[in-house]
Amino acid sequence: MNTIYSDGYPIYFENSLDELVKFIEQGKYSRFFVLCDEHTSVHCFPKLQEKISHIDNHDLIEVSAGEECKNIDFCIGVWKMLIDFGADRKALMINLGGGVITDMGGFAASTYKRGIDFVQVPTTLLSQVDASVGGKTGIDVDSVKNIIGTFTQPKAVFIDYDFLSTLPERQMLSGLAEMLKHGLILDAAYWNQLKAADLTHPPAELIHASVILKNKVVLEDPTEQNIRKSLNFGHTIGHAIETWSLTNDRNPLTHGEAIAIGMICEAYIANKRTGLSDAELAEIETVINGLYPHYKLKHEAYENIYSIMLKDKKNIDGKINCTLLDRIGQFNIDNICTKEEIFEAMNHYAGH
Amino acid sequence: MNTIYSDGYPIYFENSLDELVKFIEQGKYSRFFVLCDEHTSVHCFPKLQEKISHIDNHDLIEVSAGEECKNIDFCIGVWKMLIDFGADRKALMINLGGGVITDMGGFAASTYKRGIDFVQVPTTLLSQVDASVGGKTGIDVDSVKNIIGTFTQPKAVFIDYDFLSTLPERQMLSGLAEMLKHGLILDAAYWNQLKAADLTHPPAELIHASVILKNKVVLEDPTEQNIRKSLNFGHTIGHAIETWSLTNDRNPLTHGEAIAIGMICEAYIANKRTGLSDAELAEIETVINGLYPHYKLKHEAYENIYSIMLKDKKNIDGKINCTLLDRIGQFNIDNICTKEEIFEAMNHYAGH
Repeated sequence: MNTIYSDGYPIYFENSLDELVKFIEQGKYSRFFVLCDEHTSVHCFPKLQEKISHIDNHDLIEVSAGEECKNIDFCIGVWKMLIDFGADRKALMINLGGGVITDMGGFAASTYKRGIDFVQVPTTLLSQVDASVGGKTGIDVDSVKNIIGTFTQPKAVFIDYDFLSTLPERQMLSGLAEMLKHGLILDAAYWNQLKAADLTHPPAELIHASVILKNKVVLEDPTEQNIRKSLNFGHTIGHAIETWSLTNDRNPLTHGEAIAIGMICEAYIANKRTGLSDAELAEIETVINGLYPHYKLKHEAYENIYSIMLKDKKNIDGKINCTLLDRIGQFNIDNICTKEEIFEAMNHYAGH
Repeated sequence: MNTIYSDGYPIYFENSLDELVKFIEQGKYSRFFVLCDEHTSVHCFPKLQEKISHIDNHDLIEVSAGEECKNIDFCIGVWKMLIDFGADRKALMINLGGGVITDMGGFAASTYKRGIDFVQVPTTLLSQVDASVGGKTGIDVDSVKNIIGTFTQPKAVFIDYDFLSTLPERQMLSGLAEMLKHGLILDAAYWNQLKAADLTHPPAELIHASVILKNKVVLEDPTEQNIRKSLNFGHTIGHAIETWSLTNDRNPLTHGEAIAIGMICEAYIANKRTGLSDAELAEIETVINGLYPHYKLKHEAYENIYSIMLKDKKNIDGKINCTLLDRIGQFNIDNICTKEEIFEAMNHYAGH
């Protein structure tokens, strides 16, 4: 699998940890910091440590795991550790983990001393296919997701397929939702490939293909003026459901589970508005419902979910902006959706 | 006085508040937010409010005044207010105040929803000659000054000389230190003009000239690879003394008072190392000591001040990097100074 070139940086897929060691050895960094969570420090860091044991000047920064750790308070903790370790402007940050680690680590690095270099080593399927490209960093404030962040590119991304072997199936499915999205908005052939594959363990080639698809979009429209908005498919409704679930469910939805619901809801609206056929809507629902457990979307939560939507970065002037589909493989951006349409779509999913 | 053009944005000096109103009227902003502190909301905002009373869609965000409010906690407060007000990506932030407001407001805006537009209306002499150019935003964490921030340019800067009429003399002198610095590092003729002027009320033309000097440096070297480091003169030692004073003195030094001390210390080292003549060192000391009260620099604080210096952004690999002078008007960057030299320079200032 070829190295993919994004906005000024490479994304490695083969012998990635060896490439990372080469990168460190060639860089003129004063010191480097590996940011882990409690899982990746156990399951992933040892594999890296083996390869860098000959290099001095590195420290581990460990934070707790989970979406709630993407909060500003944890980010302040990372900044304080960098200060205490005496990290200077030539320090390198290596973010080893899922999206929480790569997003928060990216934000911490991009603002520490007005910006130090960082690289991403995404260890979950979700972060490999989503957070690896696009240069978005972010943290949550008051459980508003990614409300604070920067657009800053990493110096390189290192994707190691083997890390996925320790990933629980539910986390695997979480990343899969983004892969399905890439097919639905951009490439019907890729969608068909996904349908035919064993999706509990997506082969490396399909992950690679997913990153290529996202990378094309991001390179063409880095500042999200037009086609990059395609990536928001399923996210307008999905993100809000995810946020709601995070603060209300004992066992909250994963990002992918929420996006899967969002994609069904937004495909439903697309069927009404932008010409997605009944057959394709049914196909999308069959594939998604075959992979993800049904979620009991409570009617009494709708208003709350809707008000979360209004706080979403994507929305301007109190209007809800959705990316829909013309057909599978063809997105359609900038559709202002009404509250009624959104409630109807959620009813459709929930079976109310 | 001509409008000065910096990195993609204008700095207005004439009829600045009218220019601001024009800017707001022409912009396609969904809403705007004026960030004030408790002083500028009383002394400065009414003057602006008069001119924008016909424009809807604005809100005031007020924070407490003082350097300690530049802390991340206050920044989180600003972010939360933006969230609560429902600020979207097309919102504009107007930072009306001194350096704390322009630095923190700039940081809050540059990271809210990954960046919204902001303009600066600096109301103190210090912020007019220093924070108005350069694109540095920043906040403090754990009393480490400006440790977190971004490089982000405002959309415009509006300098209104009349705001200075309500400024206490001590705050005036704080800004003056940066003007003196611009002369010392860049322009002997300007330094002579300053010496000849009534420096308790520097005329608008000298402020304008100071911004032109800083702007040239910043445009030539935006990322601080070489000549921009000239602006650090007096700051390596001065910043550390300022930080120490902030946490230890009942009535802490202003930024300018600390930089004034730093300039004497660093001029002393320059005299030993880079050829600044005895006569010029004496001249610098006479001017500065004639303007600023003597500060009792305690010997027992040296170690502490030195360890603050080690945490400074400018220093790489535990080495203290000073900008010195060859002569008045000619800086000399990248001088690694030893602990002994720094202690000796502080002794010289303190008269120990």
